[in-house]
Amino acid sequence: MLSKTQVKYIQSLFHKKFRDEHGRFIVEGPKMVSEALLHAPKDIEQIYALSSWITEMNVSTIPITEVPAFEMEKISSLSTASPALAILRKPVQQRPASVNGITLVLDTIQDPGNLGTIIRTAEWFGVQQIICSEGTADCYNPKVIQSTMGSIFRMPVFYEDIMEWVGQCKDIPVLATSLDGEPMKPGRPGRDLVVVIGNESAGIRPALQAMATQRWLIPRHGEAESLNAAVATGIMLYALTT
Amino acid sequence: MLSKTQVKYIQSLFHKKFRDEHGRFIVEGPKMVSEALLHAPKDIEQIYALSSWITEMNVSTIPITEVPAFEMEKISSLSTASPALAILRKPVQQRPASVNGITLVLDTIQDPGNLGTIIRTAEWFGVQQIICSEGTADCYNPKVIQSTMGSIFRMPVFYEDIMEWVGQCKDIPVLATSLDGEPMKPGRPGRDLVVVIGNESAGIRPALQAMATQRWLIPRHGEAESLNAAVATGIMLYALTT
Repeated sequence: MLSKTQVKYIQSLFHKKFRDEHGRFIVEGPKMVSEALLHAPKDIEQIYALSSWITEMNVSTIPITEVPAFEMEKISSLSTASPALAILRKPVQQRPASVNGITLVLDTIQDPGNLGTIIRTAEWFGVQQIICSEGTADCYNPKVIQSTMGSIFRMPVFYEDIMEWVGQCKDIPVLATSLDGEPMKPGRPGRDLVVVIGNESAGIRPALQAMATQRWLIPRHGEAESLNAAVATGIMLYALTT
Repeated sequence: MLSKTQVKYIQSLFHKKFRDEHGRFIVEGPKMVSEALLHAPKDIEQIYALSSWITEMNVSTIPITEVPAFEMEKISSLSTASPALAILRKPVQQRPASVNGITLVLDTIQDPGNLGTIIRTAEWFGVQQIICSEGTADCYNPKVIQSTMGSIFRMPVFYEDIMEWVGQCKDIPVLATSLDGEPMKPGRPGRDLVVVIGNESAGIRPALQAMATQRWLIPRHGEAESLNAAVATGIMLYALTT
């Protein structure tokens, strides 16, 4: 049995305020807990799981608490309660590295599903690192973690003053998607690149647009007003890496 | 004041069973209701809205019921209750047209957000029509409608036995995305094309894979296991239309 205090503590980690306060975050679902065991075993502080999961996984190096199904339902944020939930220590925030390949800069991506999908897509295309504006969703939000499908454990994500960060990227091409940019052409303007993706409805803030060395429009053939931010990211990265 | 029966009726339309039974669906949110007024005014049966929305929009041709904020909260499915909600008649289901340009075939896309984003992306790239397998999410699901950002009113979507439908597409190239396909190359194998997108985790069913004339892998440069279905659709359509 979990104590009331334990349940309350776990539930608190679904909120950014308490994740920041405790320096912990939650990973749920058999696939994501397996990814954590594989890629971030040292960051796992504690696992709560059904006895069936414990028997099947046979993990010996990490503290595991057996929890009955009705209690997993209490602590899970998923619509179908997960058989396992892990509490992880948040990695100590480092500073971004110098650009070496493609760095993705996100200006206020607010939807957690979009952010998770962007992190997953960035990993597929071999992006070096992602730098998020402070208004971007928290990458330790459970919905973000879920949508990354494990890429959260492999893709470096930073939160920075993006105006300042982009400002110090001298001599590196800065590409921005923009509905009033030039139609995108295949080809890559340099080995090292910064690619900026804008907010779901407002796009990239004008001061940051102004810092872009190239503004690209993904060619449009129909009536739709805009593309989803994660879809636009995928198309940009495909075009740049092909 | 709405009667209990009215509230119950509106809430019932959040479920496919009742949408099918009543032949109606719901459109919520100022942007989406505006899109409905612009692109499908004849299908709107009734609008429920706050007095502020009614004054601002000044719609005279459609029955509107003024509803106080606390009642909008009852009938809205959005986390922040919408100022307006419309009930629309579902269009009579037609049969798909012969392929003329790109037809998208969806094999069991289950996530409503993915389906909506795919419909929006398809419209951006000028896709002719979308044909969904019976296991695909209902395109009149409120989350699908929301994610289409209005494309639901302009993109023809059909539900068919996709095995049978693809089977009768003689002499038309059928492209499938596949993790064991050939790396995708720019270029379009024909003016008229069928592009198949598979389920989020299981991919395209083997019998349908076998009917594909070409199987393409989106080039991968990192560790991620797979791409989100909507992102993969966007990249395929970009590559085919560029």
